[in-house]
This record gives sequence, C-alpha cells and structure tokens, in this order.
Amino acid sequence: MTALVKAEAAPGLSLRTVERPRPGRNDVLIRMLKTGICGTDVHIYCWDEWASRRVHPPFILGHEFMGVVEDAGDGVTGFRPGDLVSGEGHLGCGHCYFCRTGHGHICRQVKIIGVDCDGCFAQYMLMTEGNVWKLKPGIPHEVAAIFDPYGNAMHTVMAQAVAGKSIAIMGAGAIGLMACKIAHAAGALSVFVVEPNPRKRELALEFGVQAVFDPAAPDWKQRFLEITPESIGVDIVLEMSGSPAGLRNAFELVRPGGELALLGIPSSDVGLNIAESIIFKSVTVRGINGRLMFETWYQCERFLVDHKLDLMPLITHRFDFHDFEQAFTLLRQGEAVKVILNWEA
Amino acid sequence: MTALVKAEAAPGLSLRTVERPRPGRNDVLIRMLKTGICGTDVHIYCWDEWASRRVHPPFILGHEFMGVVEDAGDGVTGFRPGDLVSGEGHLGCGHCYFCRTGHGHICRQVKIIGVDCDGCFAQYMLMTEGNVWKLKPGIPHEVAAIFDPYGNAMHTVMAQAVAGKSIAIMGAGAIGLMACKIAHAAGALSVFVVEPNPRKRELALEFGVQAVFDPAAPDWKQRFLEITPESIGVDIVLEMSGSPAGLRNAFELVRPGGELALLGIPSSDVGLNIAESIIFKSVTVRGINGRLMFETWYQCERFLVDHKLDLMPLITHRFDFHDFEQAFTLLRQGEAVKVILNWEA
Amino acid sequence: MTALVKAEAAPGLSLRTVERPRPGRNDVLIRMLKTGICGTDVHIYCWDEWASRRVHPPFILGHEFMGVVEDAGDGVTGFRPGDLVSGEGHLGCGHCYFCRTGHGHICRQVKIIGVDCDGCFAQYMLMTEGNVWKLKPGIPHEVAAIFDPYGNAMHTVMAQAVAGKSIAIMGAGAIGLMACKIAHAAGALSVFVVEPNPRKRELALEFGVQAVFDPAAPDWKQRFLEITPESIGVDIVLEMSGSPAGLRNAFELVRPGGELALLGIPSSDVGLNIAESIIFKSVTVRGINGRLMFETWYQCERFLVDHKLDLMPLITHRFDFHDFEQAFTLLRQGEAVKVILNWEA
Amino acid sequence: MTALVKAEAAPGLSLRTVERPRPGRNDVLIRMLKTGICGTDVHIYCWDEWASRRVHPPFILGHEFMGVVEDAGDGVTGFRPGDLVSGEGHLGCGHCYFCRTGHGHICRQVKIIGVDCDGCFAQYMLMTEGNVWKLKPGIPHEVAAIFDPYGNAMHTVMAQAVAGKSIAIMGAGAIGLMACKIAHAAGALSVFVVEPNPRKRELALEFGVQAVFDPAAPDWKQRFLEITPESIGVDIVLEMSGSPAGLRNAFELVRPGGELALLGIPSSDVGLNIAESIIFKSVTVRGINGRLMFETWYQCERFLVDHKLDLMPLITHRFDFHDFEQAFTLLRQGEAVKVILNWEA
Repeated sequence: MTALVKAEAAPGLSLRTVERPRPGRNDVLIRMLKTGICGTDVHIYCWDEWASRRVHPPFILGHEFMGVVEDAGDGVTGFRPGDLVSGEGHLGCGHCYFCRTGHGHICRQVKIIGVDCDGCFAQYMLMTEGNVWKLKPGIPHEVAAIFDPYGNAMHTVMAQAVAGKSIAIMGAGAIGLMACKIAHAAGALSVFVVEPNPRKRELALEFGVQAVFDPAAPDWKQRFLEITPESIGVDIVLEMSGSPAGLRNAFELVRPGGELALLGIPSSDVGLNIAESIIFKSVTVRGINGRLMFETWYQCERFLVDHKLDLMPLITHRFDFHDFEQAFTLLRQGEAVKVILNWEA
Repeated sequence: MTALVKAEAAPGLSLRTVERPRPGRNDVLIRMLKTGICGTDVHIYCWDEWASRRVHPPFILGHEFMGVVEDAGDGVTGFRPGDLVSGEGHLGCGHCYFCRTGHGHICRQVKIIGVDCDGCFAQYMLMTEGNVWKLKPGIPHEVAAIFDPYGNAMHTVMAQAVAGKSIAIMGAGAIGLMACKIAHAAGALSVFVVEPNPRKRELALEFGVQAVFDPAAPDWKQRFLEITPESIGVDIVLEMSGSPAGLRNAFELVRPGGELALLGIPSSDVGLNIAESIIFKSVTVRGINGRLMFETWYQCERFLVDHKLDLMPLITHRFDFHDFEQAFTLLRQGEAVKVILNWEA
Repeated sequence: MTALVKAEAAPGLSLRTVERPRPGRNDVLIRMLKTGICGTDVHIYCWDEWASRRVHPPFILGHEFMGVVEDAGDGVTGFRPGDLVSGEGHLGCGHCYFCRTGHGHICRQVKIIGVDCDGCFAQYMLMTEGNVWKLKPGIPHEVAAIFDPYGNAMHTVMAQAVAGKSIAIMGAGAIGLMACKIAHAAGALSVFVVEPNPRKRELALEFGVQAVFDPAAPDWKQRFLEITPESIGVDIVLEMSGSPAGLRNAFELVRPGGELALLGIPSSDVGLNIAESIIFKSVTVRGINGRLMFETWYQCERFLVDHKLDLMPLITHRFDFHDFEQAFTLLRQGEAVKVILNWEA
Repeated sequence: MTALVKAEAAPGLSLRTVERPRPGRNDVLIRMLKTGICGTDVHIYCWDEWASRRVHPPFILGHEFMGVVEDAGDGVTGFRPGDLVSGEGHLGCGHCYFCRTGHGHICRQVKIIGVDCDGCFAQYMLMTEGNVWKLKPGIPHEVAAIFDPYGNAMHTVMAQAVAGKSIAIMGAGAIGLMACKIAHAAGALSVFVVEPNPRKRELALEFGVQAVFDPAAPDWKQRFLEITPESIGVDIVLEMSGSPAGLRNAFELVRPGGELALLGIPSSDVGLNIAESIIFKSVTVRGINGRLMFETWYQCERFLVDHKLDLMPLITHRFDFHDFEQAFTLLRQGEAVKVILNWEA
C-alpha cells in the first residue's frame, strides 16, 4: 500500500510503498477514505525544533481520518466490514489509574498515532477496536475526517458551562473557528474573537460571532471590555492561539470569578502576573488535552446528528493524497483553514 | 479611644488617641478584645514597595479581630450589646453582580478594613451589621480573633474536594499550617508540606502531616514523587508560599488531571511552562481570594464547634496592644506563627 | 389607592380603596405598571383546599410585576424615582444560614408577597431595596412583568447543564413553554413536550420543540423512547405538570444516569417505584423552588438583552385591572397562557 | 472443583462438583481464597419473591471475593500467577454509551456474577481481565473479600461532598456501618444513625458515630433535629435501609437544600409527599447503583492503604465453605454483620 511517511530527521515527507498491516485479534483494519491535516503535521513536515525533539522517524504521519472497515481480528465484536468509522488517536495503556477511571487521554504511557507510532496517512491502517468510532449515517465524510480537532474544540468548550455566558476565543484557526460554532450551539450568549489575521477575523464573522478584535489595533482591549456585560470582561476565555500575548490577553479579558480553558500550546515559558491575573481575580484555569474517551465523541456526534452545527465551511481545500505537497504549502502559508487529503481510489 | 495608626507614608506605626466612632443606623459598635496580626500588617508596618503603592495613610490598621458588641444602630436587628462577635473585613458594595450573587469577596468596589479604611487595631470599631459574625459559645477568644486567616485557609482547602486525596501544601506559615489541619479534618488521606524554614517544617510535623520537604535539599522532588500514590504526584496542591519557586514546584508536584489552589501572592511575574505545567497535564488551577461570605464562616465555625480542629497551637505569642513593637519585631524575624494583640483593659 | 384584595376566606377577589403605603428607610415605593397573573393567584381566587390552608385574608394579591420607582426611603442608595423595576417576591429573613450563603429562596422564614403579606395587585407597592431589580433598557414591559415565572423556568432549566442534551418537559403551561425556549437557547439539542391539552401542544410546536406527545395516546411512551438518542430515554426531564402521572412518566422517560428537575407541585402523595425509578437507574433528582437571588435574575436579563429569547408570544391576553374578573375567568377555563393586568392610568 | 450452586427454583443451596473453567484469551483464572456473603445471596438462598423473578437456576452463587491468580489467557497483560486479586462483579457490555463514558455500572446489558451468570462461591472462577483488581500489599484478605459492598458504601458516601457536613445514615447493616466509617474518614463532622435493631445501634456507637436513634422511640425525630446544626436537619442523608419508613424519614431529616443518596432497595412502591419532601425543600436526590469502575476501587484501596479505615471489626463470623448452612442461618437471624466463607484448602 502507499503511505505518506516521515522518513528521516529532516524537512519534508515522502510517499512510500509499505506493507499493508494485518489485523491482530482485537484490531480493526481500516481502508482510508479521507484524512485531515493538522498543524502538528505541518510542524513535523517542516521539522522545526519541537518536532525534532518529539518524534522519531521513520513513521507514517497523520491522526485525523475516516474510512471503512476492511477486515477485523477474531476478537472484534463491535465492527464488521463496510462500517464507516473514525477513531481516537490517543492510545492509552489501558491499565493505569487514568485509563481505568475514564481519563485515558492523560495516560502517561499514551501513544498518539502519527506521532509516536504509525498514523493514518496511508491507504490502510490498523486500530485496536476500543479506539474505533462507528459513524452515524448522515455525517458528511469530510466532517467525519476531522472529528479529532472537532473533539479538541468540543472538549475545550464543554470544559465549563457556557450556556448563558459571554465567551472570548483567542485565535481563530481551525479549532478556534469550530469553537465559535460549538459555543453558540451550546448556549453561549455572545462570542468574541481576538485574532491578528484579517482573513480569519472575517471568517469568524461569517461564522456568526458577535465581534472580532485585532490585537494590533489601538485601544482594542478597552473596546472589548466595554461590550462585555457590566464592562468587567467575559465569563469565559478559550485560549486557542498558543501565543504568549494571547495568553496574557486571556487573563486580562476574563472577568473576576471567570473561567479560562487553555488549549493552544505556547512554545516557551510565559511570564504571568499570577497575583493580578489569577489570585485577586479568583479565576479558574483548566488545561485541555485531547478529548474525553468517549464522552466528547458522543457530544461531537450528537451536535451533528441534530443539525446544530455545520462544519463544512471550515473545509477550504481538498487534495488527492498524491498532491500532498500542495496541501502542506497552502497550510504553511496560512491560506487554508482545514485541508482534506483524499485516499479513495 | 486608643488606636494603632499608620500615620504617615513611612515605616512604623503609632498609638494615637482618636475619637470613638458612633454607630450609624445599620452599624454595630464593637469593643475590641483580641486582634491577630497578619503578614499584610507587617508589610504596612515596614512600608515596603507593595504597601506604598496600596495604602493611603493615615488610617487605623488591622483586620483580624474579635470583640463584644457595645452598641448598635436602630436598624440593627441581629445583634445586641454583650454578643461576642468577629466579622468579615471585606466590605462589598452590595449592589453589583458579585455582591448580589454570593461573590462579594470579589466585588470590584470592595473595601478591606485596615487597608482601605479604618481597621480593628483600636479599642472600638464600627462594622455594618451584614459583615458582623456572631460567635458560638465554646470557641476560644484567641481562635475567634483569627477567623479571617482561618477563613483563607478554609476557603483554599474547600475550593476542591480533598476527601480521599493526597495534598501538598507549599509554605507552612500560619495559613499553611492551618490548612494542614483543615485538610486532614476534611478527609485528606495524606498531607505533605514543602517549606524551607526548619522550624516551620517541625511545626508541620507536630501538626500531623505525613512528610515535610526542604526545597533546598538534593533530590527532594524525586523523593516527594516516590511517596505519592502511583508515583505520579499529588492530587491537589495548595500554594501558600507566594514564592516563584513555590509556584513552579506546585506545578511539578501535582499529578496529571490534578488541581491547584493558589493563595500565596507572588510579588512579581512568574515564568511558567504553560504547555507542560497546565495543558499537557490537564490540571485545574483556582485563584483564591478572601473567603466566601458566609459559607466559609459557617464551615470555620462548624469544624471548631464539632471539635475537629484545634487552632490554639498556632498562637505562639500574645501581647498587650501597648507592646505592639515587640509583636511586629517577632513577626519580622519569622519567629512567631500567630501573634495576638490584647485590647482588654 | 386601589388594590385587588383577597378580602375574606371565600372565593373571589375585590377591588378596594386602601391607604397608599409610605416607604420606610430601606424601602422603594413602586408605582405599578403591569402585573402578571399566576396559577397561584387563581387558586387563591377560587379558594380551593390548598389556598384555604395556606393564606390568611385580608391581603393584597399578586407577585408578578413591573413598575416605576415613585419614591424611596433615606437609606436607599441604588434606586431613584423614574427607574423601571421588577422585584423578587421572596423576602428572606436576611440573617439565617440560607440567606447568608446565597440561598435566600429557601429561607425558613421567607415571606412571599401576595401570599404571606401584601402583594403587587395595587397601584403602589413597597419593596425593600435588596429585593428590587432594576430593568435594563430594551426589555418589553410585559415581559418584565413576568420575570417571576420566567425566573422559575430559568432556575429549573439551569439547575443542570442542558447544553448538548436531550430534554423532556412534562406540562406545557406558561412555565413549561418558557422552559422550551430557554432550553433551546441554553444549548439543548432536542426538546420534547408531554402535554394532554392539544392547544398547548400546538403552542409548544410553534415554540420550536422537536416533538410533542399526548399522554392519553396509545403507545406514546414507546414512540417517545424511540426518538431519543440510543433509544434509552432523554438526558434530562423537567417536571412542570405537578400531576402524579406526569411525575411517574418523568421517571420512565429519563435515561439511566439522567437528571430530573421537579418544579410542578403535586397536591397529594405520589407512589413511586424508587428501586426502578431512581436507584437502579442512578438518576439525580432536584427539587426546584423559586429562583436564585440573584443569579437567576441576571440570567433572565442576559438572555433577553442578547436577544436569545422572545417571551412576547406567551402573553396571550391583556386587561385593565378593573376587568380582573374576565382575566381570572379566562385562566380558569385554561384558554390563556399568560395574562397581564394593566395598572397604568 | 467444588462450587456452591443455586441448583433449582426453590429455597436452599447445594455444594456440587463442577468442571473447573479454562481461561479464554482475555480471562484470568482465580483460585478463590475468601468470599463474603451479601444480603442478595440470602434472598437467593431463601428464594423469596424478588429472587424468583430475578434469577434463573442453575448457577454458582456469590459476588464478593478475593483470591490468587492461577492462570491467564494469552491476551492478558496485567496479571500473572500469584497475584492477589479481587474484582468488579458488574460485567458491562463494553460497547454502549455507558461503558464507553465511564458509567459501565449502569450499562443496560450488564451481567452481575452470581446473579446473571456463575459467581465466586467456588474453588475457581474466571473473570475477564478488565474486571480484575490487583490488591496492594497490606490489605487484609478478609477485607479484600468485601471490596464489593465496601465499594457500594464508598460510592454512596462519595456521591456528594461530605467534608464539613452533618450526615444521617438510615440503616446500620454491613453497608451502613461501613458508610459510618467512610463518612468520618472523608471529613464528615457528625454522623447520626437511625436503626431499629439495638445490637446494630450499639455497633454504630462502637464505630464512632455521634448519636443513634431508634425509629420506634417516641419523639425521636424531634430529638434528632435538635442536635443538627441550626436545628434544621442534616446536610446529607444516606438511605441504606431500603424500608419505606426509612425513605420517608430520610426526607424529613434532611435540611432544606440538602442531599440524599439512596442505596437501599425498597421492595414496593413508596408514597412520597413530593411537594414538601423534595420541591419546597429544594433537595437533591441521587440513586446509587454498584460502584464506579474504577474510581471507587481506587478510593477503597487508598483509604485502606493510608490506614484511614479499619473494616476488620465488621467481619463478625468466618466459616469453611463446607459449613455454608451455618453462615446463612446466622445471616437470616440478623445476628451477623459480615460473614466470610473460606475456600482455602
């Protein structure tokens, strides 16, 4: 079969012919239909400092996918050939405190497909039955292919009660834009976006947010605070930019007693005025990692099945997997939101 | 009457004769019996950089107290002369979102007695009825005088469920030591203390904690982690040191999915590895300010009335208010835990 | 002034001329503009068994209102003549555990206006400042007049997280219909209504619910369960019928691990299969009383100010207060949803 | 091997020689050391109305156990011969919403060992790896044998925050008595027991509860309320009697705004004054079933390992499994609290 491989410790990726894997007793063999490209994949492509520390070539890249069950091991009882599936790319050890109490997403021995082991950018992939997710009819294949980042956004939004609240989202990348839609669908009264890129601010407005702010504009913080209830800041901030400035702004824009969910990953230490930002304001800060197995997956499914969300507008580009270079180029240029690689014959 | 006054923008305090206040319609006039000295009072005494920015002499110092009702305005219905009382020193505006939803401790217009207006280091003090707390019989007067810091400790411990959990407390000052006792009484299974001062580590052991650690010792973090369940760190960290090192340690010692409550106030920005400390670990961080009006007060009362706590060992020194210089000297030297000033004739 | 008085222990009400009250120090004098008629008022009008046990004539009826501040006592600082206001009709004692911890709605000494003391069906009414609620501009006067039942509905919906959940509402009276709108606005994915009255079922459909069920129809429970996710029942049931059948149905329709909020008040004991309904299903049941002071009021305000709800369609009839007999007749006949009495000159 | 079998649909049990099971790929074969006898086992022995509806002979009885791993299937990675183990007797389907979101204890296809399939009253038993629990050193074997009911008690106590609260426990059987110990260890300030049997009341006092009440005594409810904080009832009631009177008392003794956890299973419908008991009081009621997999198991382990609980006094009698008739006789007579059957050679 063909796979998109991080072959060596250097920039770039290559299409290679590799052996098609055979399912073990509890494995499901998935024939890939669509995959999504994540920012993490771009880091690995570019071989930046983070990537060179984190991953160990050679391995097949990719963790956002949907496909069809081709085969399954003898011990598999919940899936059969022809089932349309996506799957959770965090593979917990299954034995530790976290895995046994519903927190497998923070298992200390977790392996992530496409990072710690072979991933989904291939014509076929194995996945242990417990991580496979059967898709309900009616969910578009391209949306099914991005359940992984959709799950990040859902997990972040649902980490606190947003119903009846005002929300700020720092960073309107793919996950930030999904969070805009989810927050509204989950009952947020107002959603404000802070984003330096004018194209992304425009998209956020198209997605229905109440206001957007350019953090380079003069007096924007004052204008922001003025439109929040009682002018004291928003109830909740979702930090999805990963930038030190975004983080510091997050703490300024949240109201006293408010809540912050941090998903964006800063690449270096961030200096914070803990006294003013956290203590005197009595805020609650939650670090968000992955998504709940499988509470978040059910939530993702139900918002779609009940037609409360349309994620299709997020998918701005599609490519055949042979044209992966074009896809990565677009993403590196910041032109695309979500790009799908097509693996169907 | 006599009062201990911060008379001018310079180090020191002075005993002055001032007019005894007369109760307005909703005020209670309290004849002071015992007051506690807080670290904040020492900062103001010393006139450090924080104090010179924060307070505006002249004013009467002090916010930890107990006394007896001497008189009350016509509108007061809940108190009468002879009642033994303490009181909440955070005076909310009463009209804002926070005050009207049970979060008066983070009211933006809050005034703190002894900081923003006259305090309790005086023979008499007025307090609006809504802030006065009637003491139940059987609570020692000296313990009643420190309900304010006891409430800080209680609020911090009760900000998350500690029952069945392992706890680390960073900093064994007066509030940290109270938190040791409260955490055990509230069902914590193990309580570990990190504290550089050997005398305070010894006190923590006397107070029944399972282990103490000197952050200057080699390999202490490794030894710490080894004694936690599954060797992955403690469920909960209470940060009560206010030092940047204490804060950074707090994030290293908490387990993935754990919780941190921050009460100690760092005096400058702290650089944090947000990615590793908060996001990948999926921890929850809560800023703690003051104490809940009056949920925390009821909790403080009930732990004492039901004899689950003995705070008397915390009170290491007592002075007549005329000898205040000695008291402040002891505290500046770090010799004392809790010092009581006696205002009784 | 003129007031609508429950003059004696017998059916009916009468318009009487009574002395206009004068504000005490902390009172606000409100000139009434609009009042709503509650089911409780109808019980008192009819002098049924409940009413004869509960209330003690003579007193002025009514607890749903909005008006304009006419005057205020010297101690009132938050209101001035001309302010448009509504107010919380539960008057807590202010001194007990509940009142001091933000749970004044369950104060054991609570007095309810129009039930335990004089109410709002009058040209003027006094209310202690702490219970008065200043209205934001843009809220229709008629909607402001029904903040009390709107608050009941809000409190019931917000008693659990409805975002991403399926909801059943038992009983589509005025409060049930408001709950339909609130649940959707707060992020519920689907809302189903069970209601015997065909007119009310029709209204529920107009209000956007996903399906309505007639509890007299054959096989309705089976059809209900079939449209719930996984066919195991809804995540949450809001019981607003107060009928024994409604209550028993509520427990059958909720899924294992689900939640129920009970607001409707059954007039007699209800036999429940506690083992199957509550224990084996591991459900959580919450009794709902009044509304939170003032968290619920802020929520009510913000959903309106942010245009997430339109309650005007609920108001089906308006009368001048002189025509109160017509209003009560309509309500007794079950023809009206919400009826407004107009007190403006 | 020998097993204690419910051989037919009639009272009694019989020791039979049956084939020793062989482990499938994911199974652990456990050689039994100690088992506990549950009230459910007594119902099945006696073949009462509930048992005749619920279970289908023939099958091996028993679900409380500890033993040693004798063998394991090829797919088992977490256990090896010689490991001391107990295990969760609720076998979830593994595929449904509940099983995939950490709520396997309420899986609709759950099978309970010793009830729906063969149980642990045998010299050997198979259990699927995912349900086996490895015991930490230092836990007495007899205590390990009763982790199942200990888990019921733990789950019930931990279903709400008990720290700093007053608790009433209705029914001082084995689980009620365990709950007394757990509640104290988890930070409850006072624990009161209501129990008709004088021997059990005495045991409760020996276990350290603050007061016991005989529900047949005159004025006991008034005396109960008088010793609760503010005389308004306890914060939390744990219903472990399963009797209609116990349930109704539970609702009378809880304070407004309080919480109830229902574990005891009434055998018929119970008439409740929902208006007064639940709605006006604004209480929260939780049905409790089984125990959380495996949050509760970790909690059970940690309270023991940290020496916060001693459950040995609960074990009043031990028998060799050949003498099972004596054990069941004692339990039917209400003489014993917890009885252990010994399966060691």
